[in-house]
Amino acid sequence: MAGTADPRQKLREICRIAARVFYEKGYDGASMQDIAQAVKLTKAGLYHHVGSKDRLLFEIMNYGMDILDETVLERVKAIEDPQERLRQTIIGHIDLVIRARDLEITVILHENRSLKGALRKKINARKKAYIHHIEDLIAQVQEQSGHAPLISPALAAFNLLGIINWLYQWYRPEGPITQDELTRGCLDFFFRGLLGGPQPSPATPEDRNPFV
Amino acid sequence: MAGTADPRQKLREICRIAARVFYEKGYDGASMQDIAQAVKLTKAGLYHHVGSKDRLLFEIMNYGMDILDETVLERVKAIEDPQERLRQTIIGHIDLVIRARDLEITVILHENRSLKGALRKKINARKKAYIHHIEDLIAQVQEQSGHAPLISPALAAFNLLGIINWLYQWYRPEGPITQDELTRGCLDFFFRGLLGGPQPSPATPEDRNPFV
Repeated sequence: MAGTADPRQKLREICRIAARVFYEKGYDGASMQDIAQAVKLTKAGLYHHVGSKDRLLFEIMNYGMDILDETVLERVKAIEDPQERLRQTIIGHIDLVIRARDLEITVILHENRSLKGALRKKINARKKAYIHHIEDLIAQVQEQSGHAPLISPALAAFNLLGIINWLYQWYRPEGPITQDELTRGCLDFFFRGLLGGPQPSPATPEDRNPFV
Repeated sequence: MAGTADPRQKLREICRIAARVFYEKGYDGASMQDIAQAVKLTKAGLYHHVGSKDRLLFEIMNYGMDILDETVLERVKAIEDPQERLRQTIIGHIDLVIRARDLEITVILHENRSLKGALRKKINARKKAYIHHIEDLIAQVQEQSGHAPLISPALAAFNLLGIINWLYQWYRPEGPITQDELTRGCLDFFFRGLLGGPQPSPATPEDRNPFV
């Protein structure tokens, strides 16, 4: 095994490149031969690593959920204050969705119709766990606010995910809105929707409401 | 021509059925033969109606935008009050996205990577016109409120479209949330995000905040 890359890293590299091929050609339009070429393996070598095309798609989605866990949830779990933990979760999730490096994986994660049966169920279970995590956080923030909730945690969570997951459809980092402006604008909008009243970000007064 | 259906109606029928085939098999996975079979035409007959596979995809998306214009914009344009016009636009758009009849067309409209060149530009121009329409309405509502805007009309519009267009990913009419509850919850959330403060729907007091 000397000289061989860590198999987990190898699988991730395959996922990243295969995601680009699926993104460009569509899941049905891309052949395992196309993907083998892109990842510089023989077709047999590719099958050795991923088992099947279905399984490869599952691995890509699973990797997408791993990235979400590692770059968002892991980084916020030590934050005690629920509102700050929710804020940082949103900041991390927005960053993940709009950064170019993981664009293809993010898009494929949203389009899970090609995945079937048990593999689909596994991915959906991971997505559900993430949504429940957000819902719990939202409920804690509402509780902490001391006021009667204005919206169900479930609907607030889905609205939030809609706002964030839609970004890839329109937001361009090279466009007129900086990532900081975008993030603060979304945070303020979401927290007003959740708690009512203008909810300023805990930022310096001069950089508040950057869109106005 | 006697006995022949209206060609526009025929094209729409083809679009509706073809959308279902693309939805099930993917754009690249579905052949023109598959679609011809589904719409009960010969392959030559199908090409006669739609020109090419690219063109068929364009026609499906164009039809999706027609439905948006006809069932949402046309129905609200006589409403003078901007806030009520925006409310009714949101209600109509939510209804369009969650009703089962147009599910496939709605989904395909969001996944426009398969469309290329001039056809893609045409669809994107129609989508942009819709977004600008929403932005204008939002700016009028902000103006009317008499307060300094809390968010740019553009970001508010994209957040709104994210909330609405994400519904097909999670909302099920047969689930615990009725369409009325969903619609009022989204409206209240959006208007709080836009204008601050709890913004109750102009509904009877007892059916306000159905999610609480």
